[in-house]
Amino acid sequence: MNGRDPEGDERGPVTIAYIAESAGVSVPTVSKVLNGRSGVSDGTRARVEALINQYGYQKPPGSRSNVVELVFRELESMWAVEIIRGVERVAGRSRVGVMVSEFGLHDSTGMSMDDTVGRRPQCVLSVAQLSEAEREQLRAKGIPFVVFDPTTELPDDVPFVGATNWRGGHAAARHLIGLGHRRIAMIGGPDEVLCCRARLAGYGSAMLEAGLPMDAELVVRAPLTREDGRAAARALLTGPDRPTAIFAANDLQALGVYQAAREVGLRIPEDLSVVGFDDLPVVAWADPPLTTVHQPLTEMAVAATELALALGRGEQIPQIGVEIATTLVVRNSTAPPKG
Amino acid sequence: MNGRDPEGDERGPVTIAYIAESAGVSVPTVSKVLNGRSGVSDGTRARVEALINQYGYQKPPGSRSNVVELVFRELESMWAVEIIRGVERVAGRSRVGVMVSEFGLHDSTGMSMDDTVGRRPQCVLSVAQLSEAEREQLRAKGIPFVVFDPTTELPDDVPFVGATNWRGGHAAARHLIGLGHRRIAMIGGPDEVLCCRARLAGYGSAMLEAGLPMDAELVVRAPLTREDGRAAARALLTGPDRPTAIFAANDLQALGVYQAAREVGLRIPEDLSVVGFDDLPVVAWADPPLTTVHQPLTEMAVAATELALALGRGEQIPQIGVEIATTLVVRNSTAPPKG
Repeated sequence: MNGRDPEGDERGPVTIAYIAESAGVSVPTVSKVLNGRSGVSDGTRARVEALINQYGYQKPPGSRSNVVELVFRELESMWAVEIIRGVERVAGRSRVGVMVSEFGLHDSTGMSMDDTVGRRPQCVLSVAQLSEAEREQLRAKGIPFVVFDPTTELPDDVPFVGATNWRGGHAAARHLIGLGHRRIAMIGGPDEVLCCRARLAGYGSAMLEAGLPMDAELVVRAPLTREDGRAAARALLTGPDRPTAIFAANDLQALGVYQAAREVGLRIPEDLSVVGFDDLPVVAWADPPLTTVHQPLTEMAVAATELALALGRGEQIPQIGVEIATTLVVRNSTAPPKG
Repeated sequence: MNGRDPEGDERGPVTIAYIAESAGVSVPTVSKVLNGRSGVSDGTRARVEALINQYGYQKPPGSRSNVVELVFRELESMWAVEIIRGVERVAGRSRVGVMVSEFGLHDSTGMSMDDTVGRRPQCVLSVAQLSEAEREQLRAKGIPFVVFDPTTELPDDVPFVGATNWRGGHAAARHLIGLGHRRIAMIGGPDEVLCCRARLAGYGSAMLEAGLPMDAELVVRAPLTREDGRAAARALLTGPDRPTAIFAANDLQALGVYQAAREVGLRIPEDLSVVGFDDLPVVAWADPPLTTVHQPLTEMAVAATELALALGRGEQIPQIGVEIATTLVVRNSTAPPKG
């Protein structure tokens, strides 16, 4: 921070006055840029925003509204409520409001990050995605942010909270290996989704450790839906030398495996063991109840909100990113293979 | 409105100035009461709030923040996301933010209606409940509100959006009667929940219309959970002269009926027809897929948000309450009775 503050205070955070002096503009001009108001030329705005980014300026908490912004890219998901519940828990304790928005990364209609930024929140929690442009936009307004369960790789300086997907995949495959299975198939999710690559890698590591061949026929990719899980499982179960166990990249796919098994006349777990990932509330009610990897969504949301609020208060945080541990929940869909 | 405005404008809404004059206090005092600020004696505050209520004063939209407050009493429910999605759809179109809170009616910890009121929203949407004290509190601050899917009876002047529960229950029972069933049981929900009484009454009306006796043994009450549905179904299915069809007050209970049927060795729909209520996303995946009454939660949330925003703009609305139509979704859990 040396020499950044023209008034000689080397301890304090960067001030608006310092940014104004650095940019050769007035303090009100910097304020206009920070608050997204008009009356500033594009060139000046760009220069000021670049300095705000460069110096890592954050608005003092008092100048922001007492709100956490929780941004979903898709509210369809079955786990949104568990995330909201975790955010509410922390926000309630801190008496901060929770603003929930839904907008795609490239939405042409409805709300966008502009609306979120315009509300001057304490911080932004974005579920699964935050584009580079959006991160720049938030930084330029001095609003801290945390990415929840990132689906893509992020630069090292982006705060995030995720789950231990590799460990989860590893535990699932080890459980099946421990039961005596040798032909264990995996329905992986799309390769572009980071957590799916980690789950698949966990499975691969467990297979390798057990000295089991990673038969290419045993690893298939499918979108994370029940219907695609069903189609993938049908292909696996109707081929020669079918697997005795299937590990699916998520619970929806695993429910599709259930359906495929019924269709080809295989009983779970007598003829086929199945493991899912997520532990959606509904899978405990499946017939038989599904063995799956529990993703601690509420705990992840608690951690992400606490991290975001701490960033909002300008606190030094011990780590920029964290993965919360998954746990294997053994129910009735897994058993030793026959024979 | 005659004579209410001392400046002689008989068309306009009640003003703060008029309330101040009526109460014998200054305009800033009324403003303090409206905004929940201190510096007003308890007696004056009570007198001003009573006048605000009496005159139905609403703050002009511009004095309120550009936010809809969506209050849940319990975020655990599997349908919260569908409600949030409907609210987001309207709010996005209107460029209004959605603040989501969760607090019980008598919460001693965390957030309460005080926080909601303090944020000066355009309007409040409360899911399922809004106590008389809370309604008074909102009225006293000039904040309009709508109750979503009310669980208790409300005075006629409380705006609400619900579902046609009686029609839904009627349609479910008629479907079973049309298939040829005569011994049709109903697992009703708790009598204190308004929608459960309406669903049960719809079943009763259909039975009566068909000249079928309302055998007291065929109607049981159970909480709205899967486990309670299972226990109720076990009792119904293990008695003498068991029913050939069961209509459950909600889908969770219906999934409990599935479990009970498996346990006593009855096949669905060959030996037992089952109908649920709600159409949760998961019941289409049950084995067999469940016939149920679709509750249009997203459409209800759209209607409730539009109503709340219209009230917030001070518009005259054609009706204070509305029930959105349910629809029967016939899947594979219902068939003619054997024999």
